Amino acid sequence: MPAIRILTEAELRALVPLDGEAVACVEGAFAALATQPVAMPPVLRLDIPEHRGEVDVKTAHVPGLPGFAIKISPGFFDNPKRGLPSLNGMMVLFSATTGLAEALLLDNGYLTDVRTAAAGAVAARHLARADAAVVAVLGAGVQARLQLEALALVRPIREARIWARDPAKAAGAAAALAADLGIAVSAVPDIREAVRGADVVVTTTPAERPILDASWVDPGTHVTAMGSDAEHKNEIDPALVARAAPYVADRLAQTRRLGELHHALRAGLVGEREAFPELGAVVAGLAPGRVSAEAITLCDLTGTGVQDTAIANLAAARAARAGAGTPFTT
Amino acid sequence: MPAIRILTEAELRALVPLDGEAVACVEGAFAALATQPVAMPPVLRLDIPEHRGEVDVKTAHVPGLPGFAIKISPGFFDNPKRGLPSLNGMMVLFSATTGLAEALLLDNGYLTDVRTAAAGAVAARHLARADAAVVAVLGAGVQARLQLEALALVRPIREARIWARDPAKAAGAAAALAADLGIAVSAVPDIREAVRGADVVVTTTPAERPILDASWVDPGTHVTAMGSDAEHKNEIDPALVARAAPYVADRLAQTRRLGELHHALRAGLVGEREAFPELGAVVAGLAPGRVSAEAITLCDLTGTGVQDTAIANLAAARAARAGAGTPFTT
Repeated sequence: MPAIRILTEAELRALVPLDGEAVACVEGAFAALATQPVAMPPVLRLDIPEHRGEVDVKTAHVPGLPGFAIKISPGFFDNPKRGLPSLNGMMVLFSATTGLAEALLLDNGYLTDVRTAAAGAVAARHLARADAAVVAVLGAGVQARLQLEALALVRPIREARIWARDPAKAAGAAAALAADLGIAVSAVPDIREAVRGADVVVTTTPAERPILDASWVDPGTHVTAMGSDAEHKNEIDPALVARAAPYVADRLAQTRRLGELHHALRAGLVGEREAFPELGAVVAGLAPGRVSAEAITLCDLTGTGVQDTAIANLAAARAARAGAGTPFTT
Repeated sequence: MPAIRILTEAELRALVPLDGEAVACVEGAFAALATQPVAMPPVLRLDIPEHRGEVDVKTAHVPGLPGFAIKISPGFFDNPKRGLPSLNGMMVLFSATTGLAEALLLDNGYLTDVRTAAAGAVAARHLARADAAVVAVLGAGVQARLQLEALALVRPIREARIWARDPAKAAGAAAALAADLGIAVSAVPDIREAVRGADVVVTTTPAERPILDASWVDPGTHVTAMGSDAEHKNEIDPALVARAAPYVADRLAQTRRLGELHHALRAGLVGEREAFPELGAVVAGLAPGRVSAEAITLCDLTGTGVQDTAIANLAAARAARAGAGTPFTT
């Protein structure tokens, strides 16, 4: 058997920073989803309630990519009591030609962070105004930081405002991001004030009730909502979903069930059969993105297996080029 | 992070032979399925038609077992043209308490072979007559060999007959098994003759049309059908499914869809709503097994995630005890 390459989180962080190529590979994966016979089965979900554990397994095959990833994402919410992180995970990359395992990516969720932020950049590239310069980020966690870094790759960002439920976290994130990106970043204690005049708003919280009121969002703003990946999560006022032109889903079947769209459907503000474009169709030019400087656009990101397969292929290709990782021969 | 233990196929073959403990662990897993809140989501299936590839991902959590396995089973049917085996696969064992990866079992499908054969032994222990001594095995592949070995662990087997479409393969398997098990094993060119007077019949072929006629099976026989794991596979005359008392499924929802039961349903020989016991209920004493010396019993095995989780836990426990495998620290 050929060797399997094993890559640690530290190696993957060095090999796969959030950069233009990471954004491009995720963009290509979305385009493939709209234009090619991509295979992307529904997520496999295992629940272990006695330990507050849940495990998601995602996969997708993208024709043209040499491998397909199987991503295993455990979340065990009693782990912090044990001094362990709640979230973990790994990907296994298999040859799409032979099914043989080629790489084991022990990333502890790092590649998911990168591909999620990259999707935010893809959304902004196709939906935000070309001159978008001011960003409001709601939330102060890992994605708050990465989403802002991703936006800076595709738009001329010069100012950011960070809001978080915990003002100390917002201040910490703002200071760190100002240093990292060399732009003005301030912590803003009021969401309404944070989003006033922003060109792009990114929501990255685990909120279960809307935190962004539709009336606060100025014409011309692009909103990326990436916090909802489960039925009970909800960051965006359903009225904003209904008003957005266009509302764009990463995967419509999934956002109807898990995304912000789900709550707009439940509120009766959009119809069950109403059609909305997917991000891939916008990327591929099959659906319009931003059509005027005044439109409010909204992209609803719930996470897709094609992003995982894309970033895993990128990681494996770079590792092979660099001779990185540990080969394990059976 | 704690180390992940990596085990190769060769190490796993040495650690986990088909033995009484392997049968007991699979038996326990079936009992758990009937008596405990086991979580066993539907199989995740990815198809890659351009390379005749298909990938199944199975998992289950069994309360009381320390880990849960995620099993990834690729089958790529153009591989033999490349000098590679069609079937492959691995399991990853995670802690059921923390979700952290503990072991990577690079078994290339070996553990699946063992847990499948072990299920045959469990079925025979609860459904075959206690004095069952004569076995007919249809098929001459890996499972033909392992199913016979498994039966010899639970019943006083003294004679076996092997039938296969290819008589040379049947002869080869018979010679090898006679040497391995030290019993009389003969290749029999006619199925009817092979099953006449047999106490146990095991079907292990990829047949897509019935090869075992109901009229050939004597009263008192136990039949284990383990060849069908897909909609189009069918080894057993549907009339035999209807006649069996009891017909037992490894997982009823699955045999209705993939097993021999599927074809009996389609033939209208059993009703859509007819209830049948599962193997776990029989093991746990919640449903009767064999009720008379004359009954024809049938167990329909399509493969379940609890078997994978059970055998993966056994492998990891033995590896830890033996200090086997390669620790990989991230």
